[in-house]
Amino acid sequence: MGTLSLQGVYAPTLTPICADLSIDLSAYTEFCRRLLDGGCHGLVLFGTNSEATSFSAAERMAAVDAVIESGVSADRLVIGSGAASVSEAAELTRHAVQAGCKGVLTLPPFYYPGVSDEGIFRSFAAVIDRVNDERLRMYFYHIPQVSGIHLSPNLLARLAEAYPGLAAGVKDSSGDIETLQGLHQVARAFPGYAVFCGTEALLLKNMQGGGGGCISGMANVLPHVIRDLYDNWQANDAEERQTRTNWIRDAILESGFNMIASLKVVVADQTGRPGWSRVRPPLVDLTPEEQSTLLARLTPERA
Amino acid sequence: MGTLSLQGVYAPTLTPICADLSIDLSAYTEFCRRLLDGGCHGLVLFGTNSEATSFSAAERMAAVDAVIESGVSADRLVIGSGAASVSEAAELTRHAVQAGCKGVLTLPPFYYPGVSDEGIFRSFAAVIDRVNDERLRMYFYHIPQVSGIHLSPNLLARLAEAYPGLAAGVKDSSGDIETLQGLHQVARAFPGYAVFCGTEALLLKNMQGGGGGCISGMANVLPHVIRDLYDNWQANDAEERQTRTNWIRDAILESGFNMIASLKVVVADQTGRPGWSRVRPPLVDLTPEEQSTLLARLTPERA
Repeated sequence: MGTLSLQGVYAPTLTPICADLSIDLSAYTEFCRRLLDGGCHGLVLFGTNSEATSFSAAERMAAVDAVIESGVSADRLVIGSGAASVSEAAELTRHAVQAGCKGVLTLPPFYYPGVSDEGIFRSFAAVIDRVNDERLRMYFYHIPQVSGIHLSPNLLARLAEAYPGLAAGVKDSSGDIETLQGLHQVARAFPGYAVFCGTEALLLKNMQGGGGGCISGMANVLPHVIRDLYDNWQANDAEERQTRTNWIRDAILESGFNMIASLKVVVADQTGRPGWSRVRPPLVDLTPEEQSTLLARLTPERA
Repeated sequence: MGTLSLQGVYAPTLTPICADLSIDLSAYTEFCRRLLDGGCHGLVLFGTNSEATSFSAAERMAAVDAVIESGVSADRLVIGSGAASVSEAAELTRHAVQAGCKGVLTLPPFYYPGVSDEGIFRSFAAVIDRVNDERLRMYFYHIPQVSGIHLSPNLLARLAEAYPGLAAGVKDSSGDIETLQGLHQVARAFPGYAVFCGTEALLLKNMQGGGGGCISGMANVLPHVIRDLYDNWQANDAEERQTRTNWIRDAILESGFNMIASLKVVVADQTGRPGWSRVRPPLVDLTPEEQSTLLARLTPERA
């Protein structure tokens, strides 16, 4: 403990938008404070749950600036800096480093399927080389079911060898325990290398394997429950605490609605701000009827 | 004939880069002239073969400006304006329209897989509404094996109904004849609606079905052969002319090398500029040995 480059419960922060699809910066900065007050160690601005790739680089950088200007300490922020192009990923990464952020969570280029490990290595290397700043801490973002790109243990080890300290860890959103365990093996070879899971359902197993914590969409709506597990993962009743974190994800999955749109509906309900339920295309807002159905499913557990 | 919004042989122009990965604007403008002199009716700047998504919006717009400033008439240019975000797609589209380009070829947002037709409709609608310019001619880009997104005939018809004239056609790179024929059905309902195929191997069938032509990667290296088929698709020997267009694609496919990297090697060979063989990550250049292997395979036919 204490030796990893990043530790804790991070929320891949949902991004509220106005009716014209622009980011609602007032609701956004308020929400960031709410999550930190609610138990998150930090925030990942512009991950997949944030609809990161649905915003331009300029919109993303302006929103990061607004959060920092609102008083959130940059060292509690990790910035999603992935893009389809290495030039845009480098621009987003440089901006985060220069703003003093704790790190970046970086997708590989995600347009061309079936690219080689060599091509993925060159992509990340191009970003790191362009930014060329010793303060950089890059966390590689493995979410193959969305990005279409697999980050193999061999590739991650090669990056960690080529960029010691700067290649600082990995977030695994595959949801697969064997994949996560393969990343624990990588981490053991590189002191400080932090493995995060993308589902809180694997948080206990990740901590037992030496991981750093989780970056989980559910932390947007249940930060204190996930934090409780994180703080007590070595307690006798840790398995029960793990189980208590799972119900809301299970309830949303059972509803069949899109996860991101559903989480925004829950936040709209929690904050009393109906505008929170908006998503950017290509995602689609839940209809009022769907919102009622979803919230009714969650009511017994919320009571 | 003559009534479609777009007709002819278009090259999805390969993008030459310097050793630092920036676009080699000198080689680029020279190559654009070469393709137009070689028989292309026009060029698609920043399609998939151009590695469009591997460049930032700013890089793409600057390159389009450079081509026009070099003396290429904007009405011979269609600009690939797709991006993961509707804001960036709108920016690229607006730039092309204001520059007087003939049209735009627009990918749907391509990060999230499995999005609904409603979400894709809203994405394209958001771009068209933001640009809000009657001069816009948008061609929807169907390349599901790369983008992960299917554009259904129903969706395309809905767009054509909502935006008459502006929703001007479709490019189908699926390579599937039944998909192409489904798009011919859509086109019959909307006068002027142009269907392009993404492989020259289907050019004859596309013309027979009432399509507008092809936007084919092979036009980067064999423009005159494809143009010959286009000009003579109603000739008695059209099938033979179709067969003559197929050999280089087949030879590259049989080589097993990446198509885009391979085409660039052929252009490097044709132009005597070795730098042409560079690709941007996540694609990977062919090694010198691979280049020799590829060119040797093509030599008998080139002779």
